[in-house]
Amino acid sequence: MEGKDEDVRVGANRYRERQPIGTAAQAEEDGKDYKEPPSAPFLFEPGELSSWSFYRACIAEFVATFLFLYITVLTVMGVAKSSSKCNTVGVQGIAWSFGGMIFALVYCTAGISGGHINPAVTFGMFLARKLSLTRAVFYIIFQCLGAICGALVVKGFQPHQYERLGGAANSVSRSYSIGGGLGAEIVGTFVLVYTVFSATDAKRNARDSHVPILAPLPIGFAVFLVHLATIPVTGTGINPARSLGAALVYNKDQAWDDHWIFWVGPFIGAALAALYHQIVIRAIPFKSK
Amino acid sequence: MEGKDEDVRVGANRYRERQPIGTAAQAEEDGKDYKEPPSAPFLFEPGELSSWSFYRACIAEFVATFLFLYITVLTVMGVAKSSSKCNTVGVQGIAWSFGGMIFALVYCTAGISGGHINPAVTFGMFLARKLSLTRAVFYIIFQCLGAICGALVVKGFQPHQYERLGGAANSVSRSYSIGGGLGAEIVGTFVLVYTVFSATDAKRNARDSHVPILAPLPIGFAVFLVHLATIPVTGTGINPARSLGAALVYNKDQAWDDHWIFWVGPFIGAALAALYHQIVIRAIPFKSK
Amino acid sequence: MEGKDEDVRVGANRYRERQPIGTAAQAEEDGKDYKEPPSAPFLFEPGELSSWSFYRACIAEFVATFLFLYITVLTVMGVAKSSSKCNTVGVQGIAWSFGGMIFALVYCTAGISGGHINPAVTFGMFLARKLSLTRAVFYIIFQCLGAICGALVVKGFQPHQYERLGGAANSVSRSYSIGGGLGAEIVGTFVLVYTVFSATDAKRNARDSHVPILAPLPIGFAVFLVHLATIPVTGTGINPARSLGAALVYNKDQAWDDHWIFWVGPFIGAALAALYHQIVIRAIPFKSK
Amino acid sequence: MEGKDEDVRVGANRYRERQPIGTAAQAEEDGKDYKEPPSAPFLFEPGELSSWSFYRACIAEFVATFLFLYITVLTVMGVAKSSSKCNTVGVQGIAWSFGGMIFALVYCTAGISGGHINPAVTFGMFLARKLSLTRAVFYIIFQCLGAICGALVVKGFQPHQYERLGGAANSVSRSYSIGGGLGAEIVGTFVLVYTVFSATDAKRNARDSHVPILAPLPIGFAVFLVHLATIPVTGTGINPARSLGAALVYNKDQAWDDHWIFWVGPFIGAALAALYHQIVIRAIPFKSK
Repeated sequence: MEGKDEDVRVGANRYRERQPIGTAAQAEEDGKDYKEPPSAPFLFEPGELSSWSFYRACIAEFVATFLFLYITVLTVMGVAKSSSKCNTVGVQGIAWSFGGMIFALVYCTAGISGGHINPAVTFGMFLARKLSLTRAVFYIIFQCLGAICGALVVKGFQPHQYERLGGAANSVSRSYSIGGGLGAEIVGTFVLVYTVFSATDAKRNARDSHVPILAPLPIGFAVFLVHLATIPVTGTGINPARSLGAALVYNKDQAWDDHWIFWVGPFIGAALAALYHQIVIRAIPFKSK
Repeated sequence: MEGKDEDVRVGANRYRERQPIGTAAQAEEDGKDYKEPPSAPFLFEPGELSSWSFYRACIAEFVATFLFLYITVLTVMGVAKSSSKCNTVGVQGIAWSFGGMIFALVYCTAGISGGHINPAVTFGMFLARKLSLTRAVFYIIFQCLGAICGALVVKGFQPHQYERLGGAANSVSRSYSIGGGLGAEIVGTFVLVYTVFSATDAKRNARDSHVPILAPLPIGFAVFLVHLATIPVTGTGINPARSLGAALVYNKDQAWDDHWIFWVGPFIGAALAALYHQIVIRAIPFKSK
Repeated sequence: MEGKDEDVRVGANRYRERQPIGTAAQAEEDGKDYKEPPSAPFLFEPGELSSWSFYRACIAEFVATFLFLYITVLTVMGVAKSSSKCNTVGVQGIAWSFGGMIFALVYCTAGISGGHINPAVTFGMFLARKLSLTRAVFYIIFQCLGAICGALVVKGFQPHQYERLGGAANSVSRSYSIGGGLGAEIVGTFVLVYTVFSATDAKRNARDSHVPILAPLPIGFAVFLVHLATIPVTGTGINPARSLGAALVYNKDQAWDDHWIFWVGPFIGAALAALYHQIVIRAIPFKSK
Repeated sequence: MEGKDEDVRVGANRYRERQPIGTAAQAEEDGKDYKEPPSAPFLFEPGELSSWSFYRACIAEFVATFLFLYITVLTVMGVAKSSSKCNTVGVQGIAWSFGGMIFALVYCTAGISGGHINPAVTFGMFLARKLSLTRAVFYIIFQCLGAICGALVVKGFQPHQYERLGGAANSVSRSYSIGGGLGAEIVGTFVLVYTVFSATDAKRNARDSHVPILAPLPIGFAVFLVHLATIPVTGTGINPARSLGAALVYNKDQAWDDHWIFWVGPFIGAALAALYHQIVIRAIPFKSK
């Protein structure tokens, strides 16, 4: 993969990035006013494992995923418990809960750990060489631990009802095939990771500090929108840590039967988004040195 | 149309653009601190068809319209399938789906293609000379292809139910006349394209990079609001690609009967918005050289 | 009122305006880095009536209020028409419609006319000397004309149902007294105009262009929130043009009986907000030259 | 506590704060481009009690909490009064009311008083040495007075129904234990105060004026999300002033039985958030001079 980074630095993003909305990218060659951050090393970054900021980032991912599962699973329980959905925040409220928490938590943790809160996002960022393999593995482990703890706390609040109400575990709805469920997870995660890449890219060339503060909004909205569409299909995973945490704490057969879908689907979707971003948007293969 | 551009550059926007909200534009003559981007050539831009950024923009429009139809049609299906709307995200959730997707997708693609995702917007921008005819035609073709593919994927997930549930195709509700439906599409598209022009205009004179990041929010909200109002009238088109994709994949007579409304209405609305913007807001005819 | 403006320029806003959220305004004396815009003349501004930007501002207010009534009244009709509110966007959707339109329209027209779209806001701004009496009167007239036209178009779409469904006209709910309805209009308008003043003030000292783009969001949210609270009380006016337009087009006795409340209430609320802002927040009476 | 502040100034926040979203904080040592504001004195600030800005801040907290309770309690009443929740803004509308008001009011009062509107936030800020004890006590008193007045006005509108409908008072739902209710308040307040700290921190190093304008959005969203999750548990306090105002005006035994939970829970949650922020995020104990 040597030489590639240089290509990116030389040839990609030749279009004017801050051109007006509503017009098209017409300029082909113009000066760049930003510096591409160097790719992360593939395996691990020297000194990473002995730096406090590395562990702080892991703790921040743990706490964020903990809070994410706690709030969202508790919201799902509240809706499931009521016989009439009209007396609850409803399915739309569940979608707001997932999307809104991602908005708030990415806002809070972006400066500490990058604000992934989702193994699929971490995987996509790893493919794009934004973090090392070591860091990616640590993040995913801490995300999963946080998710399990978050769901456990909700179960602790109402141990008897938790299992009766399904525990917010993901599974493919009966009116859809396994292939449909897998497809929904792939496209849904593509929407999310594509938005994350766009936010990352837009930020790259901004000199001002406000972009990391604005980017969480479309990312949270992407999660909200995918939930609006696919809650009737799979309950919406697009986040393997969220699916694992709910499944482990619920721990019934039906939660495990389809569980592979909520790892395979999001990882394929994230990889496709990374591919689309690198090949089409940044056009790496078409650039010559 | 010669000489007109010069007029714009000389006389338009004489008011202070960044004056306080809540006060009125009182200054008549003041220095301009921005440069008007030159109008796009009418027919085609030299070298456009041989540049990678042109095709990238087309691909980005295709992908964005694909994701737009996929998420929104799937959301509509989920609401239509349930016997009680209380167990779904509801009609308001459908409106959020359309508006939210436009917000997220304009955010993601504005820097690549201008983020139209809608032939009516492309048409309005073409009238305002923001892109060439060639580019406009290519965009519209790719938008329609993307819309068809997006609806096809949703149909692939649930082939039997898709037709029974109406396939999210647009048609004029029985309690409204054809004229009412056409009017609703015209005014609805006016609201959308008027917001797009305002966002474009506000951006023009901003020196900072954050405006292209903020503009998607009101644009997405405009789509959301028009859906709140006109879902009971026509199901809300205001986007010929969305209407075409849903009608082609649904492909029943009733989807085709009113189909012309969802092309004629949006194009009239976009033209009126372009007129209003050029004549009243930018006051081109009243400016002398 | 002579000498007062000077006081403002000298003594008001001595606290550091851009201090951290979460801390309090502790500094009493520090350098000001912004210039207070001069107050508008009381009666009229010289040359105002012969300037194109003045009439453009009036037209922009007309168009914005037209679109505001069109979208919101059509949304209310859609909810009223359905026997089950579950099949509509619901009362919450109505609140989004009013608040969201104010967000989008203030965003679009703030640079042209100040983006009032509401006689109560114009009145509050006039009291704070942000525009002349002439301009305020013209704005209010054009707002009322726009509102009437917007409601007329909705009635034109469905002439028979319009009257049966109440035409979105405001009136005090039976479970509330006239005093309660008046109080709800006063406090509701206070919330709106207080937010407008805060947005105006925050902007004043910002050097960047993004503030006029951000301010519409809390203003729109204020409208949304007041609707959430007072739709069950009065249907929520807080905008005399909106109440007048709906009442005139509906034109039945019950719409006129309480109509004075929707002028007196908002004007009192706007005056209280202007008072609070000038006396407490900017502390004009306590400043010495 | 001497010497600690210096540590903060020297060692904390060594990571690059404005690094890209989606990447991790990899840099360990880099130059700081911001100045840490000095801690507030513990007991009181000299001259605080004789400065106008101190009392203005107290008045602003009073007015904001008054408006907060007025709008939210009125919204809750409107939902409670209707036999079918479908004809109201619903439970989700209540959550929007609480979260949206915090968004709008923090936006309006952040520059005047810091925009706490919540004794738990004031307590957390006091623990982080952002304000003096004197100021914290005054804020909490004025917040409680404002809350009581806000609920009183709603009761004044409909004296007979207020008590029948529960007066929006907080109590632990029967399906949850006291421990569950207390836990929900602790974690809910943690989410809110953690977001407030993150917004404060992000702002610290921003040179531009837009951050205080953007921070209210995630803070308001945090309140919205906690309400989505815990309205079925405790009715959601996370704000002792809100709980006290509603309980005092409702004034029935059941409102007082659990009332301690709505003081103890939020204060523990705020303290945990302050601890997490100081120890993990800013890593004070691990920094050497």
